[in-house]
Amino acid sequence: MRSGGAAAGGLRRIGVELGDRSYPVVLGTGTLARSGPEIGRRTGASLAVVVSVPAVARRYGPTLERSLRGAGLRVRRIVVPDGDRTKRLDVVARLYRRLLEFGADRSTALVALGGGVVGDLTGFTAATFLRGVPFVQVPTTVLAMVDASVGGKVGVNLPQGKNLVGAFHQPRLVWIDVATLQTLARRQRSAGFAEVVKAAALWDAGFFARLERDAEALMALDPGRLLPALARAIAIKAEIVSRDEREAGPRMLLNLGHTLAHAVEALTGYRGVLHGEAVAMGMAYAARRSESLGLAPPGTAQRIEALLRRFALPTELPDFPREAYLAALQVDKKKRNGRIRYVVLRGIGRAETVPLSAARILPPGSVGTPRGRRRATAGRAR
Amino acid sequence: MRSGGAAAGGLRRIGVELGDRSYPVVLGTGTLARSGPEIGRRTGASLAVVVSVPAVARRYGPTLERSLRGAGLRVRRIVVPDGDRTKRLDVVARLYRRLLEFGADRSTALVALGGGVVGDLTGFTAATFLRGVPFVQVPTTVLAMVDASVGGKVGVNLPQGKNLVGAFHQPRLVWIDVATLQTLARRQRSAGFAEVVKAAALWDAGFFARLERDAEALMALDPGRLLPALARAIAIKAEIVSRDEREAGPRMLLNLGHTLAHAVEALTGYRGVLHGEAVAMGMAYAARRSESLGLAPPGTAQRIEALLRRFALPTELPDFPREAYLAALQVDKKKRNGRIRYVVLRGIGRAETVPLSAARILPPGSVGTPRGRRRATAGRAR
Repeated sequence: MRSGGAAAGGLRRIGVELGDRSYPVVLGTGTLARSGPEIGRRTGASLAVVVSVPAVARRYGPTLERSLRGAGLRVRRIVVPDGDRTKRLDVVARLYRRLLEFGADRSTALVALGGGVVGDLTGFTAATFLRGVPFVQVPTTVLAMVDASVGGKVGVNLPQGKNLVGAFHQPRLVWIDVATLQTLARRQRSAGFAEVVKAAALWDAGFFARLERDAEALMALDPGRLLPALARAIAIKAEIVSRDEREAGPRMLLNLGHTLAHAVEALTGYRGVLHGEAVAMGMAYAARRSESLGLAPPGTAQRIEALLRRFALPTELPDFPREAYLAALQVDKKKRNGRIRYVVLRGIGRAETVPLSAARILPPGSVGTPRGRRRATAGRAR
Repeated sequence: MRSGGAAAGGLRRIGVELGDRSYPVVLGTGTLARSGPEIGRRTGASLAVVVSVPAVARRYGPTLERSLRGAGLRVRRIVVPDGDRTKRLDVVARLYRRLLEFGADRSTALVALGGGVVGDLTGFTAATFLRGVPFVQVPTTVLAMVDASVGGKVGVNLPQGKNLVGAFHQPRLVWIDVATLQTLARRQRSAGFAEVVKAAALWDAGFFARLERDAEALMALDPGRLLPALARAIAIKAEIVSRDEREAGPRMLLNLGHTLAHAVEALTGYRGVLHGEAVAMGMAYAARRSESLGLAPPGTAQRIEALLRRFALPTELPDFPREAYLAALQVDKKKRNGRIRYVVLRGIGRAETVPLSAARILPPGSVGTPRGRRRATAGRAR
């Protein structure tokens, strides 16, 4: 991982080092209109197909596409519905069909303009269309900037669970214009900072302390604080992914909070809870469980919960019955031979994985109440 | 590529060298009942899911599964319909569902027992389920043994064309028992030898001469000739793939005959023509076109056509109109910026790629006759 300061033209570059699949994450403010030449150069494409959701396509599509055309590319656009439910196999099939209608070939680049849903869906399509075509991420949410756009994990959901189908497909380039965050809903902004807190909690105590200092400024998108914080969160993920592209070792740490986040999302039918909110809940729970297992010093969970709350994030798991959580954990992708590689904290800035059964992760009394059954039903019907 | 002679226990091993994705192809006669321990060892799996088609599952499933159970694995079986039309996204979706019902996780191995269709379908499912699970090929056709089981190309068809969706996913092991060929229909056997002829034609003039000597013995599955010939064809493919896993360079040569083969398959709706037969037609055409372009010496096409005919293979393209062929070439995966990387022969044992437009590959008068239109319609309605 190379981490660069602000370079010429106000662009900050972070290299994700993966041998011949290395690529840069380029951050700046108001830089969308300058993205075309580098997208063209790094993909070698003659046709760029921009995939986006309605609101983002309307707001930022024209600027991106003008820049691509200015760089000599032909441009087509595919708009998909917003929301996690768009990450479905039949939507992927629709994208294949549209690509063939556009005459796409192996020199066609797919450009994901939007949040994590657009990135995951577009990336999986790019990974599998003609056995792989070039792919560029232009993330427009905090979450996609710090998380989904680094690491090459792409995929879609199945009715049985989140991201059960996917691939590792590295983008050729991630182009981040933080000015696009100005139009992001406050709740989405909060959800994204959950992954920023996560990166700090599992890897960098000093960064965690800076977040404790700057939380309100970051929520207000103060440019002097925002760009360095996003860059640090991205650099942490880039460093971990560079060490472990295929998730055999250290990359597992990035799943801090995700075991229960996926359970929450499955139990709520992917509705009513944003991914970052679910991660915040799962991370706060993991911190508490790390303390109760005697792995993290007392006070660790309190600091994490307090910081999450300043980003307006939830820290308590929804009140489903324990049996429902245990059942949801059965489809966890990280399960090997029946045990889950659960990410625990040894303190702020230090994480590790422990193979635990679902029942050890969620001991009796940890989740659910006598009232749980009723609320769970209501939640699912929403 | 390491090529091994017959080792202890009558097993012949060919190494496909791809760094940390290297794997062996193990050939023998009557060795299916001994496959379990090595499948278990190389996948580290606790659950093996065998995917097959009805006739093959009935005939060879019990032997394979008994061997897997004897090696300590739990075993489940999924049977899919026979035929290229099974290579569809909705069949993949059905496999995901069954895998989840079996409680499959990342330690589950998928074992493809059958021909190329089963291998491609199972391999694509393995490549994408939980972002990738271990995968073993147990090919039971000549074609799958020499072609589909080496190289990691997996995928499914779209209504618009063959193998338009896929991935590169290397198996952990290819286990070949040539005794399973005894029950293979004669026409399927011929089709498989098309790829053996192809390997010789593009890479090894000495091997081509041995095929000219042994064609009838090979068609009769004479064990003394068959095992070395299959091993040589596999070793050629393994050598090329080892040099070029992602098909950027020499691997393109393996597409000899395939540009028009895919067109033939698309025009016939994947019916009535076996893949190997289509490859034979495409290869014979490529040899003739190589001569007419002045690239191959006179007589090259005649030798290739004569050898193909001794394997009871067709050498003439079906009589569709030229415009239909040109349209079918538009979706060729090897197209870049509108030109097809067409594989031509410089002589027996020497191939290269030339970027050609569809119209240059098929000059006026090369295919189709006034009667073509009628036969094409009849062909499609079959």
